[in-house]
This record gives sequence, structure tokens and C-alpha cells, in this order.
Amino acid sequence: MDNKNLVLGIDIGGTNTVLGLVDEAGKIFAKETLPTNGRNSAADFFERLFGLYSKLLINAPKDSSIIGIGIGAPNGNFYKCTIENPPNLNWGHINVAEVVKKYINVPVAVTNDANAAALGEMKFGAAIGMKNFVEITLGTGLGSGIVVNGELVYGHDGFAGEIGHTNVKPNGRLCGCGMKGCLETYVSAPGIKRTVFKLMSVVKVESHLRDVTFNQMDSKMIFDAAKEGDIIALEAFDYTAKILGMALAGTAAYLSPEAIIIFGGLANAGDFLLEPVKHYMEENLFPAFRNKVKILPSGLKEGDAAVLGASALIWHELNK
Amino acid sequence: MDNKNLVLGIDIGGTNTVLGLVDEAGKIFAKETLPTNGRNSAADFFERLFGLYSKLLINAPKDSSIIGIGIGAPNGNFYKCTIENPPNLNWGHINVAEVVKKYINVPVAVTNDANAAALGEMKFGAAIGMKNFVEITLGTGLGSGIVVNGELVYGHDGFAGEIGHTNVKPNGRLCGCGMKGCLETYVSAPGIKRTVFKLMSVVKVESHLRDVTFNQMDSKMIFDAAKEGDIIALEAFDYTAKILGMALAGTAAYLSPEAIIIFGGLANAGDFLLEPVKHYMEENLFPAFRNKVKILPSGLKEGDAAVLGASALIWHELNK
Repeated sequence: MDNKNLVLGIDIGGTNTVLGLVDEAGKIFAKETLPTNGRNSAADFFERLFGLYSKLLINAPKDSSIIGIGIGAPNGNFYKCTIENPPNLNWGHINVAEVVKKYINVPVAVTNDANAAALGEMKFGAAIGMKNFVEITLGTGLGSGIVVNGELVYGHDGFAGEIGHTNVKPNGRLCGCGMKGCLETYVSAPGIKRTVFKLMSVVKVESHLRDVTFNQMDSKMIFDAAKEGDIIALEAFDYTAKILGMALAGTAAYLSPEAIIIFGGLANAGDFLLEPVKHYMEENLFPAFRNKVKILPSGLKEGDAAVLGASALIWHELNK
Repeated sequence: MDNKNLVLGIDIGGTNTVLGLVDEAGKIFAKETLPTNGRNSAADFFERLFGLYSKLLINAPKDSSIIGIGIGAPNGNFYKCTIENPPNLNWGHINVAEVVKKYINVPVAVTNDANAAALGEMKFGAAIGMKNFVEITLGTGLGSGIVVNGELVYGHDGFAGEIGHTNVKPNGRLCGCGMKGCLETYVSAPGIKRTVFKLMSVVKVESHLRDVTFNQMDSKMIFDAAKEGDIIALEAFDYTAKILGMALAGTAAYLSPEAIIIFGGLANAGDFLLEPVKHYMEENLFPAFRNKVKILPSGLKEGDAAVLGASALIWHELNK
């Protein structure tokens, strides 16, 4: 058998970090998770990370070579190969290329998780063969990765693709970024929860959701309530879909993508979200774009998506 | 002297069409204008156009060769080299490559005027050396050309860059496209006029603009009134700048451009528009982008911009 080329895909999250060895067909040979422990230093983190990496290598196929490392991380800057003051991680400014070189000397690429997800989608998921599409990741925030002519849009400083922080309502909901009315304050797991609480304050209809505290409620509860026909949950999904659909009409006007791909927990709410998003987007679309832009669910398996995205980033670079 | 390479730049407007011979340094050797006469057929138009082209050739330097044609036209599709049902022109669907071949057999490229202006800016104007920027053209509408990694964003179907038709106000002003609340209904020559009339209906302050009919008023009158301290005109500029600044904060979040360049009659209103646009953009910007995105006036001379943009389009292709 030939020597098998693999890459190391690393997804650094606020809570956990996942790493895995991935071949070019998207097969994951070994995967590990570690707590990110962002209060400790970055040096401590990378020490633990590469400890686990040694463990992964034991499970790698014989005769395999690790030929690159792709990293998805908050505030990952592709141009500089840095992680710059990531929110919730007490790391400051990390020169990733330098840190990694201490452990293994192969090409490294860094970007944020939504950009990595977009590349994962293009290599292994719903965007195979596409050159112009937008990936929207719904989780604690709304992330986005924009692909134009088969390449990620990094912009002048490496941080393009912050669709979650476009304004959808002047003086709207306060966002973690300090602004008001950002898209992600409406469209994200916390966003739909905020909508449920707003609706409970406005309408009188009964709902089991009225027995759950703000801190206990999560988007899965809202999804489950919607499936049972709960009016407030259904209304919350419709409102979320409306805000997202209107925003994506704008995305289409900017970029005229072949598809907009929705990834993340909320995206699994299928007909409660994706169908009405499509409807509201079409309703607000510049006529020339109508019935041209697909709204698709991610083609990446949720548990593997982060590692696949990070590995796609470095596969993309290695194939240039 | 060496054989001199020139291109023919053609800007097809709703009313007039301008054509000129341009070298790679942006020098225009000869220029002509003809009425577009969009009620007549496209065949008639191109017949007249290439009649004038023969006239241009007489004024071209000796030993010059025409090596390409660039065309800026409403609904110009770069991918297909077509003009597709241009508004206000009774032409239907034009296969430009085929039509032009009857007259001259050189490479041809087509796009819309805002995209052409963006390329003109990159080759000859305020965006020389930039790889990531956005051109905004203010006229009877708001056009935009997006440049990422040194290339125009055409999107999946060739029609990307319709920032003028992103929504800035749900159920806002009726737009020519049939939608409501499009950016260009607020930010354009007719947009600022609509704002003046709205303001006259709301406030009581005196203004010379109250003596002008809607059909007679143009944006130059509003600019002149603003220079004289007219409160309504000043307020109208401020409102226009506010809407544009907020929209451009969104543009920055999508694309993280080095600069946003404003072109067109209204852009000449300098401190009445560009300065407050910058202010309102910064106020609404995702923190990571603050003080990074320049707002610049066009570096193209207004009378020459259209021809320079169209010629830049084909120079860009010829140099690939």
C-alpha cells in the first residue's frame, strides 16, 4: 500500500477543542477532544493538544504521513497565521505557525470556524462542485463563510464574513459585540430564546415554555415544543426565519451565490426553519435573483464537521 | 515608435453612449458620444456605434492597434458576454460577442457600469494597488462593484453586487425594482430628492427648495442649497449619509474591504456626504473593523470615468 497522506484538523472552541486525522476523501482516522481551558495560557493548551496528537498517531494507518495542519479558531487570521485576542480565551495574540513548529514542522493554516466550515462544505459536504456560496453557521452566534470563485473571502485584514454582525434592526437587541440589532441577536440559539421570551411577554397563549427559566431554556426545548404544536415556539421559529430570510435576501444581492448553506443545531429544525427562510428570502429578493439561490442544509455530519472543516482548510492550501 | 496597443471602451447608458480609445496608462485618444435611442433595435444601435468607431480610428495614433473591446452596459453579463433585458432599452437579449464580431474581431468583455467603474478605479483611479475594495456609484440609482482578491465578484450568475437593492427599511420607499425599502430609494439622486420632499412635509422651516416642483428639482439644487446653509438640504444630506453609512457598516462586515470608494454626482458633495458617511459607518461598525475601512472619493475624472471603466474591463482580461 502507498504511503497515505493525512492532515491534522483542529477545531478550537470556547469550551472544547476537537482534533482528528483526516485523509483527502474526508475519512477521519482518529479523533480526540480536550477541554480548551481558555483561562490558562495558550502554551498550556498547545502542550496538552500535542500530547493528544501523539496519541492520535498511534491510531493512524501504518505508513501514513501528516502533511499539514488546519486550525479553526475564534479570531483566527488566515493571512498572518495568528489567533488574535479570541473572545473567552485568555490568550492574547498567538503566532500559531511559531507555536506549532515546536511540535511538528509541516504547513499550517488558520481561520475562524465558519470559514473552515465553508471549506469543509466545499470539499466534503453540500457545496461540492460549487464556486460561489455562503455558509451560515448557527450556534451560540451566527457565523458565516463566503466563497467567491472557489476561494474564501478573507477581505483586507483576514476577518471578512461577519454577516452575523450586520444590522437588522436599528436600536435592536444588544449584542455581545457591543452593538445593537445585530443579526445574531435574533438568529442563533440564544436569539430564538430571546424571541420566545419576548413573545411570552406579548401574547397570552398558553405554553409549556412558560414553565422554564431563561437560564434553563435551550433551542432544543423550543424545537421540541414546536413539534408538539406549541404556538409560541412555532411563532418564534417563524420570526427567526423571517429575520434570517430577509437578511439572506441581502446576502444574495451582494454575492449572487449558487446556494446558502445552513449549518448547526438550529439548522436541524428543518421545516420549521429552512422552508420559511427560503420563503422569506424569496419574498425580499431583488427580482433578478428570484428562484436562483438555493437554501440547503449542511452536508457535513454534525459531530465531524469541525474537524472536517479544519482539515479542508489545509487540504485546500496544499492543493494550490 | 512601437506599435501602440489601444482598447475600445464603450459605456452604454440609458440615454447616451460614450466610446473612446484608451491606452493602458488610461490616456483617452479619442472619444465620441451617441444617443442610445433604446426604443430602437439593438442592431440599429450597434450600426451607429461602429459608424462612430470608424471616426475614432481616424484620430487614433498612427501604428496603433485595437486589441480589445470593453463594454459597460445595464444588465451586462460578464460570463455570457450578453446584455440581458436591460431596463429602459427595448433590446431583449443581446449576444454581444456575436454582434461585435460582425464589425471587428477582437476579444470583447461586458459587465455593468458599476463593475466597470470598480475596475477603472483599480487600474486608473483611487484603488490602484488595492485588492479588496467596494465601488459605490451614485446616480439615478446606487450601483456597486465588489473587488475581492483583485477580481470582480460576479457571483454564480454574473449579476452580483446589487448593494443598492439591499433592504434598509422594511416596507420603506417603493423602488423601481418593485421592492420596498431598497438602499437606492434613499441613497441616489432621486433618493435625496425624495428625502427633501419628505422633510418639507414634516418640518416647518423655510427653504427655497419649497419653490421648486418635484419634477424640476435635481440633486445639484439640493447641494447648492446646502452650501447656502438651507436647513432642509443639510438635513437631507445628513439623512442620506446616515442611511448610507449604516449600510456600508454592513458592507464592511461582509467583505472587510480596504476602502469603499464613492463615485458619481452626489459624491462631489464632499463634506456634506462623505464625511458624515464615514462617521455613521464607524458608529455602526462591528468593533473589529473600526478605523480600518477608508471612505474615499473616486479618483476618476467624471467625464472620463465610464470609458475608463469599460476599457479597464478589457485591459484586465487581456492581462490575465
